[in-house]
Amino acid sequence: MPEFAEFTPKDADFAERVRASFARQTVMDLIGARLGRVAPGEVEIELPFRPDLCQQHGFFHAGVTSTIADSAAGYAGYSLFAADSSVLTVEFKINLLAPADGELLRAVGRVVKPGRTLTVTEAEVSVVKNGRAKPCARLSQTLMCLAGRPDIPEAG
Amino acid sequence: MPEFAEFTPKDADFAERVRASFARQTVMDLIGARLGRVAPGEVEIELPFRPDLCQQHGFFHAGVTSTIADSAAGYAGYSLFAADSSVLTVEFKINLLAPADGELLRAVGRVVKPGRTLTVTEAEVSVVKNGRAKPCARLSQTLMCLAGRPDIPEAG
Amino acid sequence: MPEFAEFTPKDADFAERVRASFARQTVMDLIGARLGRVAPGEVEIELPFRPDLCQQHGFFHAGVTSTIADSAAGYAGYSLFAADSSVLTVEFKINLLAPADGELLRAVGRVVKPGRTLTVTEAEVSVVKNGRAKPCARLSQTLMCLAGRPDIPEAG
Amino acid sequence: MPEFAEFTPKDADFAERVRASFARQTVMDLIGARLGRVAPGEVEIELPFRPDLCQQHGFFHAGVTSTIADSAAGYAGYSLFAADSSVLTVEFKINLLAPADGELLRAVGRVVKPGRTLTVTEAEVSVVKNGRAKPCARLSQTLMCLAGRPDIPEAG
Repeated sequence: MPEFAEFTPKDADFAERVRASFARQTVMDLIGARLGRVAPGEVEIELPFRPDLCQQHGFFHAGVTSTIADSAAGYAGYSLFAADSSVLTVEFKINLLAPADGELLRAVGRVVKPGRTLTVTEAEVSVVKNGRAKPCARLSQTLMCLAGRPDIPEAG
Repeated sequence: MPEFAEFTPKDADFAERVRASFARQTVMDLIGARLGRVAPGEVEIELPFRPDLCQQHGFFHAGVTSTIADSAAGYAGYSLFAADSSVLTVEFKINLLAPADGELLRAVGRVVKPGRTLTVTEAEVSVVKNGRAKPCARLSQTLMCLAGRPDIPEAG
Repeated sequence: MPEFAEFTPKDADFAERVRASFARQTVMDLIGARLGRVAPGEVEIELPFRPDLCQQHGFFHAGVTSTIADSAAGYAGYSLFAADSSVLTVEFKINLLAPADGELLRAVGRVVKPGRTLTVTEAEVSVVKNGRAKPCARLSQTLMCLAGRPDIPEAG
Repeated sequence: MPEFAEFTPKDADFAERVRASFARQTVMDLIGARLGRVAPGEVEIELPFRPDLCQQHGFFHAGVTSTIADSAAGYAGYSLFAADSSVLTVEFKINLLAPADGELLRAVGRVVKPGRTLTVTEAEVSVVKNGRAKPCARLSQTLMCLAGRPDIPEAG
């Protein structure tokens, strides 16, 4: 059903822009997440298991799953924005389909509907256990584009 | 509108049980979150600002906000469960009302509707800046009670 | 927790504007819904039971519950908008807390956070059975304000 | 991304069961909705435009869109349940992607993750205008299976 369209980025340097912004998300470094594939309207984030990322049963915490899913979907949207814009998450919903029990989490975010002000995205999260991937969460998200406000570090 | 009912816990030791489970959520230690008030159907989690918890603009990452909101609401539900049960998050939705810009995040989770299998909860998150609290997120959540499966650490 | 603020409408004729727009929602007439209280940031819609509004078990259909909850929350937001604007629902989530079994549904929508472009609202729906009201659904919603586009009927 | 699995129904008469239940949803008759394709884990509902189904701008009301999307996704889940069970919507979230402006609404519901107690589904809604379909809404939903409680009409 969701036949994902091919998107044309407004900014030829979209991937560099996404990577630079991701590098400023300090929480990604804290948890050990890394940016994978960055394509127009599609971004992947991976997170290897660590014992300090868990809920009470020793699996990835739902908040950790949400953290990478929110960013994967957010950067999927941001990849289609103009160079001088920023992105804000307006809201997201996440369904947790199965315990996030495995050695690696992978979130793939994709744009469902781009828009001038609002962009709708989604993310699918899989957990890899013994080398086999299994869906463990799905996120649907609304993003806001802040035009004319580049996503740059604050001047020092 | 949401007139929160007073709830009677099934387990007199609910607060101890919540605190023990929270202590096993290793991600809470990683980010520096601490459990506050634990009452029947209501649980508070606080998180002081740290520069390694941020999104690209230097505010708390939405995933971090979600992490403490999910746990606050989840433990609000769990506080009403029987002693020999566990809790799973089925889904949640979060609206981000304002940038989480401040020195402290506080999530207060409350039970909206307890149930035998499913419990509906919500959480309000405020950010405290220069000593003033301001709402920054609202979460609505569905929990599942796993009866007869105590939330205990795995045997070694 | 959700301490609803008192809101000051931008348009003194907000109630008249809400009532005129509601009157143009033809589906409200189809199902028999009526507008109740209209206050700044708070709107009530009531719907008496009819056997043609049901799901397969003879209770109000979740879509019918959603219809009045979406409009109650949407008009709660719209009551705070400027006179020359329209309102669009961006998204909503609804938790169905109990079967909507009764002689009357009542949705009360309230603004959680007004904003220039986006407004966050919620609605609580109760079902009245034998004269007693019981919560049966909760909705959380994001609205968009279309400034400079009055909500008027299309010219003929 | 969402590669929909092929599902094997537990009940060979699933389609007949879905059609009988749909026929008992009186609101479908009120609004003029008709059941389309019924496959294991996938159900389609169509709704021709009528002027009495509208919001204030003359397009399908979001609640009407939600009504057919909720039922399409709900019956997609129900198609995989055992013969002696019923289905309840626990919650859904809907993103409205574009105004539902056209001569026909079509909702296609699909199962994302079946489960013993809870099933996660989604629906995509398109609006057909001048013969061209365009996505206008996306729903994500949690269903509950009531085992041992057949979805039959109440005895008179």
